Amino acid sequence: MRCEVLAIGTELLLGQIVDTNSAWIGEQLAASGVDSYEHRAIGDNQTRIVDALRDLFSRSDAVLVCGGLGPTQDDLTRDAIAELMNVPLVRHDDLAEQIAQMFRARVRDMPQNNLRQADVPEGGQAIPNPIGTAPGLLCELPDGKVVYAVPGVPYEMKQMVTDHVIPDLLRRSGEAAAIVSISLKTWGTSESALAESVAHRLDALDAQGGNPTIAFLARGIEGLVVRVTAKGATEAEARALVELEEKELRLILGDLVFGVDDETMESAVLELLRGRGWTLGVAESLTGGLIGARIVNVEGASDTFRGTIGSYATDVKRSLLGVTAESVVSEQAAREMAEAAQRVLGADVGISATGVAGPTEQDGVAVGTVFFGIAIPGLPTEVVSTRLPGDRERLRQFSTISLLNLLRQRLDALGRR
Amino acid sequence: MRCEVLAIGTELLLGQIVDTNSAWIGEQLAASGVDSYEHRAIGDNQTRIVDALRDLFSRSDAVLVCGGLGPTQDDLTRDAIAELMNVPLVRHDDLAEQIAQMFRARVRDMPQNNLRQADVPEGGQAIPNPIGTAPGLLCELPDGKVVYAVPGVPYEMKQMVTDHVIPDLLRRSGEAAAIVSISLKTWGTSESALAESVAHRLDALDAQGGNPTIAFLARGIEGLVVRVTAKGATEAEARALVELEEKELRLILGDLVFGVDDETMESAVLELLRGRGWTLGVAESLTGGLIGARIVNVEGASDTFRGTIGSYATDVKRSLLGVTAESVVSEQAAREMAEAAQRVLGADVGISATGVAGPTEQDGVAVGTVFFGIAIPGLPTEVVSTRLPGDRERLRQFSTISLLNLLRQRLDALGRR
Repeated sequence: MRCEVLAIGTELLLGQIVDTNSAWIGEQLAASGVDSYEHRAIGDNQTRIVDALRDLFSRSDAVLVCGGLGPTQDDLTRDAIAELMNVPLVRHDDLAEQIAQMFRARVRDMPQNNLRQADVPEGGQAIPNPIGTAPGLLCELPDGKVVYAVPGVPYEMKQMVTDHVIPDLLRRSGEAAAIVSISLKTWGTSESALAESVAHRLDALDAQGGNPTIAFLARGIEGLVVRVTAKGATEAEARALVELEEKELRLILGDLVFGVDDETMESAVLELLRGRGWTLGVAESLTGGLIGARIVNVEGASDTFRGTIGSYATDVKRSLLGVTAESVVSEQAAREMAEAAQRVLGADVGISATGVAGPTEQDGVAVGTVFFGIAIPGLPTEVVSTRLPGDRERLRQFSTISLLNLLRQRLDALGRR
Repeated sequence: MRCEVLAIGTELLLGQIVDTNSAWIGEQLAASGVDSYEHRAIGDNQTRIVDALRDLFSRSDAVLVCGGLGPTQDDLTRDAIAELMNVPLVRHDDLAEQIAQMFRARVRDMPQNNLRQADVPEGGQAIPNPIGTAPGLLCELPDGKVVYAVPGVPYEMKQMVTDHVIPDLLRRSGEAAAIVSISLKTWGTSESALAESVAHRLDALDAQGGNPTIAFLARGIEGLVVRVTAKGATEAEARALVELEEKELRLILGDLVFGVDDETMESAVLELLRGRGWTLGVAESLTGGLIGARIVNVEGASDTFRGTIGSYATDVKRSLLGVTAESVVSEQAAREMAEAAQRVLGADVGISATGVAGPTEQDGVAVGTVFFGIAIPGLPTEVVSTRLPGDRERLRQFSTISLLNLLRQRLDALGRR
């Protein structure tokens, strides 16, 4: 089964927005075992949309069109699909009523144009859109091939692809009734080392018919994802295969795994702290507040996070945090800062980061040198120093996740004693 | 003149990376008056690359291929272009020597594979790559059409497109010898309001032949860019046209404009502070450190930025900042926090943000309510309250840039008295 992706919108060609939808769709298709040979973006021009569809269908079984379903005269996906199928557009009264209803609920007048969104090429089906006005389309061509159309608004697109397009593609491919996958999120190793350590699992799965499969996804400074995907006759069957493989992989990967699916490094850290009833305080220098900013990404951080002191200037480190170390980029400074985070912010656990973000060295310390301090109740304060690569921005992002990962590993080890 | 964009890489189709290059290239082409009807991404497969090139050249004058120039067997752009041209690849000794030199400079052994990067289709030219090992390609086809190839690494790609591809396209289009553009960055108004306020300039430029042109680019929470682009026989001629129009637009836009080209909101704020020899301190709550993190994005922030206190917990606001207001999300709390930022961090200017990021209300204050405090020497401390839209993350990002923009406007007004 092969499905190509066609994004519609002149704004994509002009670079006014970056097409993140196609990458997301590509990932979903791959996870479902559906191949994709081409992603294409073209402008709001009916002739060119029809030409692109014909061209893609000359080589492929399905095309997923993204965008061009809005209410304006520029939105031509519906018309193009009708032209491709050589059928008229038919207004669906139930869809028109739903759209009118949605405007009434928001107490807004409905421009007549919006009713265009209730038009469906004859013989096609509408895909419901519970969170927006534009329904999607699912239209089978006479030769059994299929074109899907979904809105360009990412959260509307994602819901339709997940709930309707992927299940329909799976039904058509006839391969499996259900697909289940899990993403094990790892941090602190390279892609080649990770691949090497699980190579024998890949071989074992291949030998038993390639179900489940394992894929590695690079996530930049957020680490590497190991994704396990299984097909099954039922969801329960697929899930059981995934869970079995997850156990095998966790034995190999150990504490490289910081979370699963939507979990983040910061949510993992807060969860471990919460488990012990501990609060967290931060003292940061080169990161300027980024560590705190990242922690408050987590909903409900307020029960655990006390705050951060972004002590950028040297004499703020001295006056506010009581740092006495001669160099403020040193092991001693990091230790004093972590303990000050406990004391000044009234936190159980204190962490710190001080380093040289560049562009030039500081106090004779080279760019990229970073010291992390970790003060945990009942343990001596620990300092880890490292030399990180990259420019200013990357260095700070890297420092932030490195320190959070260190804290996670320490808390995790404590739990396993 | 028309130039299509062809991105190469199976990882793009699998959604492992988002293609930001094509959008950037699309923007550069549009700014240079070169049309683009299609962006396409395909995998690392020579036959499919050649087929795509043939298809694109059936409709277009030029194709810019991005990616597939690396040293591995997966990198097939060179081979595909040679196949398209029906010529062999020829090894260029000078390129081979440059590549070997680059490895020697880094004291690393060069895998023999890397010499593949010195291969150029017969009759084609190499585009120099001063910052990486992969040269680009510029190959004219027998019918006068042209194919460019640039690496997928964004900063290498950008330098080659700016320095070689765009100038070559302009020469071929014969329209103008030089293109100059300027981006006026604005914050605090809607696209429709902006378009309305400069509508008469658009009309005037149209009436005089459409040179320079004006385009609006949405940049999300970073505001809206008004880009002026002029063509001229010489760069000086084009620049003069841009500068004339910039003056007209600045009269209309006033202090909505916070910067030009690569300037950011935070660099604008630091520049204004530096002009007065003032330092800055921040006290922030809902943003958790994000305001500080954003300010230290600016190289050389350390001469002006004292630090931030991310006082997330209520009693940290009381103990560390001396907040006495009954509700910590109130006008009084914002005022006390801004003044504490001056006092505790030893800063001339203090700013603060306190608000409810959600998901639920706090102290009876609705989600999205934010108070900003601004304490400037010689002026009474000012508090601005607002109600911002969006989810947790968006709210914090929006709060950060809103507060920086307020400070910028106040400092700017001070300068103009």
